[in-house]
Amino acid sequence: VPALSAHRFFVGPGVISDGRAVIGADQARQIATVLRLGPGDTVVLLRDGLEHDVRLETVGRDRAEGVVTGRRPAANEPRLRLTLALPLLRGDRSEEVLEAVTQLGVSRVVPFTSERSVARELSRAKRERWERVTRESAETARRASVPEIHELCSWPDLFGSLEGPAIVAWEEAETSLRIGPVAADRASLIVGPEGGLTGSEIDLARERGAEIVSLGPRTLRSETAAIAAVAMLIGWSEG
Amino acid sequence: VPALSAHRFFVGPGVISDGRAVIGADQARQIATVLRLGPGDTVVLLRDGLEHDVRLETVGRDRAEGVVTGRRPAANEPRLRLTLALPLLRGDRSEEVLEAVTQLGVSRVVPFTSERSVARELSRAKRERWERVTRESAETARRASVPEIHELCSWPDLFGSLEGPAIVAWEEAETSLRIGPVAADRASLIVGPEGGLTGSEIDLARERGAEIVSLGPRTLRSETAAIAAVAMLIGWSEG
Repeated sequence: VPALSAHRFFVGPGVISDGRAVIGADQARQIATVLRLGPGDTVVLLRDGLEHDVRLETVGRDRAEGVVTGRRPAANEPRLRLTLALPLLRGDRSEEVLEAVTQLGVSRVVPFTSERSVARELSRAKRERWERVTRESAETARRASVPEIHELCSWPDLFGSLEGPAIVAWEEAETSLRIGPVAADRASLIVGPEGGLTGSEIDLARERGAEIVSLGPRTLRSETAAIAAVAMLIGWSEG
Repeated sequence: VPALSAHRFFVGPGVISDGRAVIGADQARQIATVLRLGPGDTVVLLRDGLEHDVRLETVGRDRAEGVVTGRRPAANEPRLRLTLALPLLRGDRSEEVLEAVTQLGVSRVVPFTSERSVARELSRAKRERWERVTRESAETARRASVPEIHELCSWPDLFGSLEGPAIVAWEEAETSLRIGPVAADRASLIVGPEGGLTGSEIDLARERGAEIVSLGPRTLRSETAAIAAVAMLIGWSEG
């Protein structure tokens, strides 16, 4: 089965048409020089929820062409459509979290800053890196779609950008995240920045209907909290 | 309550005696120059399962002294005593995993190499870094104990070094890790290296009584698999 071992690429509009694929610069270069594939090899192209097996015919650094030999609905998306509200973290820590939560199956990421955030800007260059990290992580994780990255929000604006019941992980909460299948088909998880969320931010979250839960008695760094809570919520929805 | 905001340190034998504490070089330097504490400030020292509140009297770069003002059993250890068998990973990836799983509550770590391992040696310097990472992560996570780091094992030797039922996370397994409280009070989780585990390694694990499970349909990197599975197992044991 070529699809199981073949490298996967999310492709843009127009790449696949009339049973053929024409792959442009970035991905052609990866096929030619990183994966070192040639005519006769197969790649899988993902577009609009479909997986296309493509047998390569010509491979160059700027362009690769091939014929579609198979097509099926792309699978491997979790039952739970989970939005992660992720604070901007220092250095490349946000990217490490994005890589892990993309593998685990997050559907949307809403970056935000709050009172105690250290990092406060999402530059264009950083957003482009985030988009590359999520796309490549979704490809290697064999997902059918790439998590969408929302515009940067402030804390008060954040709640309008979420989907489904909102859960805020806060270490001072009195109740813990509970085991059990998630009732909704979508939910949002909010994790605080390095310095934590403030009491008034938590009050605002409660007013907006969010549930405030702790992830247990041990103090977790933001990165660990995000990865662990995503693993538990998506694991429970599938278990 | 000083204990809630005070910095925590695991200390060696002899540091606390007769209601007083004498803190040596490394930790005194951190108290003096990183935390910038002085006489009258409080730290919490952990030793033999007890937390000691210590009010500092003298603080120098080589030595800090104080009086024990309170003592209680240290809490925050998970109900499940979980051993993580962690392959040696490239670069400092093992350290990132150690930091996260220590925060999440792992009790023991057994490093191993297997057929497809890329990294194959645990140097003395690296082991010392690992010990520092686990100790410091346990301190900031407010744990009562530091995960023990076992000697490096080969795959066949690994199974003699585990505790309780052994669970191998393998992406080709037909059954998934199931939701539900873990019946045992101890368990071991084994995650494969970057290149995956081989069929014959899985056969050996089965012969040794391990359960082989997948962590779901999405392909996870070793680091993500370790953090996610530890979060799920310890979360379920407490939820």
